[in-house]
Amino acid sequence: MLEKQNTLLDAYKNAKYQVTGHGKRDVSVLLDSLSNQTGQEESDMYGSGHIIDSFQEKMAAYLGKESAVFFPSGTMAQQIAMRIWCDEKGIQKVAYHPLCHLEIHEEDGLKELHHIEPVLLSDPNKIIKMDDVVNMKEDVSCLLLELPQREIGGQLPTFEELQGISDYCREKGIKLHLDGARLFEILPFYEKTAAEVCAIFDSVYVSFYKGIGGVAGAILAGPKDFAEKSKVWKRRHGGDLISLYPYILSADFYFDQRVGKMEEYYKGAKELAALYNECEGVCTLPITPVSNMFHVHIQAPKHEMECILADTYGESGVGLTGHLRENGENRCFFEVSLGDNYLEVPNNNLKKTFTVLNKKLKTRTLV
Amino acid sequence: MLEKQNTLLDAYKNAKYQVTGHGKRDVSVLLDSLSNQTGQEESDMYGSGHIIDSFQEKMAAYLGKESAVFFPSGTMAQQIAMRIWCDEKGIQKVAYHPLCHLEIHEEDGLKELHHIEPVLLSDPNKIIKMDDVVNMKEDVSCLLLELPQREIGGQLPTFEELQGISDYCREKGIKLHLDGARLFEILPFYEKTAAEVCAIFDSVYVSFYKGIGGVAGAILAGPKDFAEKSKVWKRRHGGDLISLYPYILSADFYFDQRVGKMEEYYKGAKELAALYNECEGVCTLPITPVSNMFHVHIQAPKHEMECILADTYGESGVGLTGHLRENGENRCFFEVSLGDNYLEVPNNNLKKTFTVLNKKLKTRTLV
Repeated sequence: MLEKQNTLLDAYKNAKYQVTGHGKRDVSVLLDSLSNQTGQEESDMYGSGHIIDSFQEKMAAYLGKESAVFFPSGTMAQQIAMRIWCDEKGIQKVAYHPLCHLEIHEEDGLKELHHIEPVLLSDPNKIIKMDDVVNMKEDVSCLLLELPQREIGGQLPTFEELQGISDYCREKGIKLHLDGARLFEILPFYEKTAAEVCAIFDSVYVSFYKGIGGVAGAILAGPKDFAEKSKVWKRRHGGDLISLYPYILSADFYFDQRVGKMEEYYKGAKELAALYNECEGVCTLPITPVSNMFHVHIQAPKHEMECILADTYGESGVGLTGHLRENGENRCFFEVSLGDNYLEVPNNNLKKTFTVLNKKLKTRTLV
Repeated sequence: MLEKQNTLLDAYKNAKYQVTGHGKRDVSVLLDSLSNQTGQEESDMYGSGHIIDSFQEKMAAYLGKESAVFFPSGTMAQQIAMRIWCDEKGIQKVAYHPLCHLEIHEEDGLKELHHIEPVLLSDPNKIIKMDDVVNMKEDVSCLLLELPQREIGGQLPTFEELQGISDYCREKGIKLHLDGARLFEILPFYEKTAAEVCAIFDSVYVSFYKGIGGVAGAILAGPKDFAEKSKVWKRRHGGDLISLYPYILSADFYFDQRVGKMEEYYKGAKELAALYNECEGVCTLPITPVSNMFHVHIQAPKHEMECILADTYGESGVGLTGHLRENGENRCFFEVSLGDNYLEVPNNNLKKTFTVLNKKLKTRTLV
């Protein structure tokens, strides 16, 4: 049973090339990031010390914020950001997208630990627009925007739309928080620096294991007073570890290595999405990616597509995805997120893969 | 100003030998623990995978509990344990010592995040005894016992006293939780296995960066149902990281290396405490240690003792402590926690240190 379930994942892993990600998430990710360490640098100690201070200062400068605080996870960082803004305004409500990470991936930590009530904005299949914000009936302390909106393929509003929402929120006394789990990845589309994007937000979280490909860890940035409060909440959450340096050193290492490659990943995503969109019954969301990610929707049942894909990888030597998710009875989809792996797939092999795949999809519809 | 403040710490660090701890908490602690890793082992993924599963199983077996869950910190693990037991009984109250870690080191996370009210048992300077538990006026869901009681020098009740408290709690439907941050360290005194001690508790937390000397991390162990609930709360707290392996691998490495050395550390502590107790105006708490730790109380003002100690280290080449804490105007104290470092201090150098120190203390009282 287990073997059957894992056929597609095995086929993906066993292919000579994998199209997505940065490579295996194995212990070498940590080892490589420590390869230049002599071992003599002192550990951070409960949030203090050179390793954590210097990385926090570096990220504050990069994000153009007064202060930055390193957290073990974005889940912790963002709940805390919401809590601080709610306590400041005295209204325990925040607004976010129905498919926000806090709403669907955190076991309701925001509600269970912080008793903060979310106001869900917009249709789940659309991004939050100015109209959603203006028409919001309830008063909230904070609006959280996730850029790009991951669960719908990584979609983005225009920068002008964002600017308008930001102006409106400032006028109304609503704090604007950026879920920037994939902030680095959207900068090429906006043609902005991180600081230029962050300037229209009051607080921002960024992650170091998505596009950056580190081991784990997050930064929460904002005004100094906000950052100091977040450290108290970090202690309360049990995140103020005696030593966070394994995550900090790897975050710093891969940040330097990959933050300049986001443009390449973005170009790759547009190129790859175009190849998918040429296939019978296949459509990417968005059609033209705005970051290194997109979703691939297929008009075929999951179990059938698993066989088709596994066979394709076997013939072409290129693995496209290891997981499919059902989308109704006769459709399925998967997420694509590009990193270093894509840059190593020879163009010929990639083209061959799509020729094979498209042939199989066409044959299927003829049957 | 900063230089003056750090004189004692510098003198301690610069001494040829340091009496306490396992050595510097620098990046080599992590590097050493990874020295046997090929890098090919896959990362744990959000609480699953071979690295985390196998360590959790190993610790469950060692602690004699049905299940064990790895946490980034004890702060997170213990708040969650309290929450689960409170929710189960429907009474949001727990009993613990006035100097419990949850009461004094966690920025009131238990109250602020979980709205659990503590009932403080016993005088702060004493350990919790059977009488304190029996005379408790309020109904609580859980009693937390910290063994040894760190903030008063690491004191312990007899095992018979513990057994009596456990029997009483089971009779009254009060869950008994062990703050076993230093559980490994007390086993030689009790002449019990970890499983024998844990058997009288419903849940237990152990730490991997005290006597074990790892990078960070904790295990929470108990019944299967309790463990499963703790995973949900770990997600809510933001502790269910995509990768916890840097902490798990180092915890496992140093557990194997040091869990068998606790008897040596304990013997060392008794030996060292005796040397302190021979000094003029010096007294250890407890007089005879029951683990690898104790406190040293000195009838002299902090600033004066800092000079005496720094001079002593300079003459003998042995550093005793880097920190003193005031205890009223004319007294001070410090904590001693023994590990590998103590085993490397030559006996002659240690004796010389105490000869020098005692001479200085005697001279001081004559003046």
